[in-house]
Amino acid sequence: MTDIAAIRAAATRLQGRARRTPLLGSPFLDRIAGRRVLVKAECLQHTGSFKFRGAWAAVSGLAPDVRARGVIAYSSGNHAQGVAAAAAGHGVAAVIVMPADAPALKIANTRALGAEVVPYDRQREDRDAIGRRLAEERGLTLIRPFDEPAVIAGQGSVGLEIAEQAAEAGVEAADVLVCCGGGGLTAGVALALEAAAPGLRPRTVEPQDFDDTARSLVAGRIVGHGRPEAGLCDAIVTPRPGSITFPILQRLCGPGLAVSDRDALRAMAAAFLRLKIVLEPGGAVALAAALFQPDAIEGDAVIVVASGGNVDPSVFARALAEAGGV
Amino acid sequence: MTDIAAIRAAATRLQGRARRTPLLGSPFLDRIAGRRVLVKAECLQHTGSFKFRGAWAAVSGLAPDVRARGVIAYSSGNHAQGVAAAAAGHGVAAVIVMPADAPALKIANTRALGAEVVPYDRQREDRDAIGRRLAEERGLTLIRPFDEPAVIAGQGSVGLEIAEQAAEAGVEAADVLVCCGGGGLTAGVALALEAAAPGLRPRTVEPQDFDDTARSLVAGRIVGHGRPEAGLCDAIVTPRPGSITFPILQRLCGPGLAVSDRDALRAMAAAFLRLKIVLEPGGAVALAAALFQPDAIEGDAVIVVASGGNVDPSVFARALAEAGGV
Repeated sequence: MTDIAAIRAAATRLQGRARRTPLLGSPFLDRIAGRRVLVKAECLQHTGSFKFRGAWAAVSGLAPDVRARGVIAYSSGNHAQGVAAAAAGHGVAAVIVMPADAPALKIANTRALGAEVVPYDRQREDRDAIGRRLAEERGLTLIRPFDEPAVIAGQGSVGLEIAEQAAEAGVEAADVLVCCGGGGLTAGVALALEAAAPGLRPRTVEPQDFDDTARSLVAGRIVGHGRPEAGLCDAIVTPRPGSITFPILQRLCGPGLAVSDRDALRAMAAAFLRLKIVLEPGGAVALAAALFQPDAIEGDAVIVVASGGNVDPSVFARALAEAGGV
Repeated sequence: MTDIAAIRAAATRLQGRARRTPLLGSPFLDRIAGRRVLVKAECLQHTGSFKFRGAWAAVSGLAPDVRARGVIAYSSGNHAQGVAAAAAGHGVAAVIVMPADAPALKIANTRALGAEVVPYDRQREDRDAIGRRLAEERGLTLIRPFDEPAVIAGQGSVGLEIAEQAAEAGVEAADVLVCCGGGGLTAGVALALEAAAPGLRPRTVEPQDFDDTARSLVAGRIVGHGRPEAGLCDAIVTPRPGSITFPILQRLCGPGLAVSDRDALRAMAAAFLRLKIVLEPGGAVALAAALFQPDAIEGDAVIVVASGGNVDPSVFARALAEAGGV
């Protein structure tokens, strides 16, 4: 069960381990958006995304004898790096089950963080079966990427920091736009804001055509986006919201937003030009909504969670090509 | 006269105005450098460079009736934006004398920050004469970019923050590599460290062939680099160190370092990949020295001031092309 007490406990465990990322702004972004824009730069978190928080919270929350046997995760991306770094920080083993065709850089990064990478064939093998077998054989604990109370609690530390930083910036009422995949980050932020800053309203932002959470919020039940591929914003694409996360989103979030790939690239360019931070496409969708969908947002200010910056140079070059237009 | 009292006073005026930028690190950078690397990310400062600090310190330090008449600066780059933003923040006029052939984006940015841009012909007109005439006619106060005690004091706030953040990170002895143009940043940092963290030794880093400060430190007197152009690292190229800054550097700094353009681009790529920050070439030279000249540095840790991130997309694309090699 994830609640504000669990989030505060996770935040205590994260003290001095996760970075307290800055809340950035620029008059140039304010001008584009027509309101004040404050950007929580989680790309500056260890391993380049907020995922480190949930991973650290989960690993640090295990009983010492359980933790000592190691942890396992299925991920090709940010969660893998977060779990690898959190396990390394605790001096325990991490096994990451990863598609054999994942980008070489991601595999290399995960290995460089000290994890054992177990590749699997996306077409022919069952990831869950491989993971279960390894977990049983070695006594590893599975760290799920979002539908995991300890992970949600760790991501909630983003919300506690936003509550404090928004108050310091004089913002008491605003939409808080969160890049949303399975909903772990948004659920954690939503629970934290409910307790610590009730004037701040969380809202999910997803890539167009992959907006399973927005559709589920409208439908009042979990529905998938139904697409087999992941697209440009792959870091935050999941088939459907989680069964733990969705009820939290349903209770606490405003209507979901969805943005085009082009606007995600334009938001990356704006962050490059005006904030000097590197965002991945999925990590830029919330900023894209803030900048380019002003009519869908209420209030004099908007807070954006820029969730990650793990982007290939070739994709970033595409964003730079949009810099003339922002 | 700039001393630690002036720096502390400037830091107080900057409280809540300048960002306390984070001190970032990554195990990947540590591996390249062979020691722990801590990066003070001044590219995340308002206007994208440390220059905002000195400009704010100078404008905020003027007598109210003097300040009300406005300020003037000669600059085509980061100092211009810093002065424009600092003046706007005080609600006073800023006039920026800028080469007519400066990049359009820089002129547009400076105007967008509320400054009046006065263009001049680099070949045929005398910038100082234009500035003096405008200053006299309108009663404007000239804010020099580095040879100005109040500006040096403002830049010194970077050093006070490094002293605190290095202590938090458990680093008591290290070289502190500072991107160096006229020496305002390095002088301020050096004075701050002398008082607040005497185990941290400041050192200048410049672009190869434009290393007038390193040469001056060797010669024991101010010498210029003697080149008419500015090169890739233009943001930090000045003809020679300042007459106020140089004696401070001479007293407090270790030997100067110089890096190639290619290494500056590679350091930009490393910062993109591992820290998710945007650096301009001149803002990356200190990181380049930390990563690629390990034998020139002493100790288990090195601290780097990444001074700015105002880089054109086309130049950043050149850095991205180096990403495979770092």
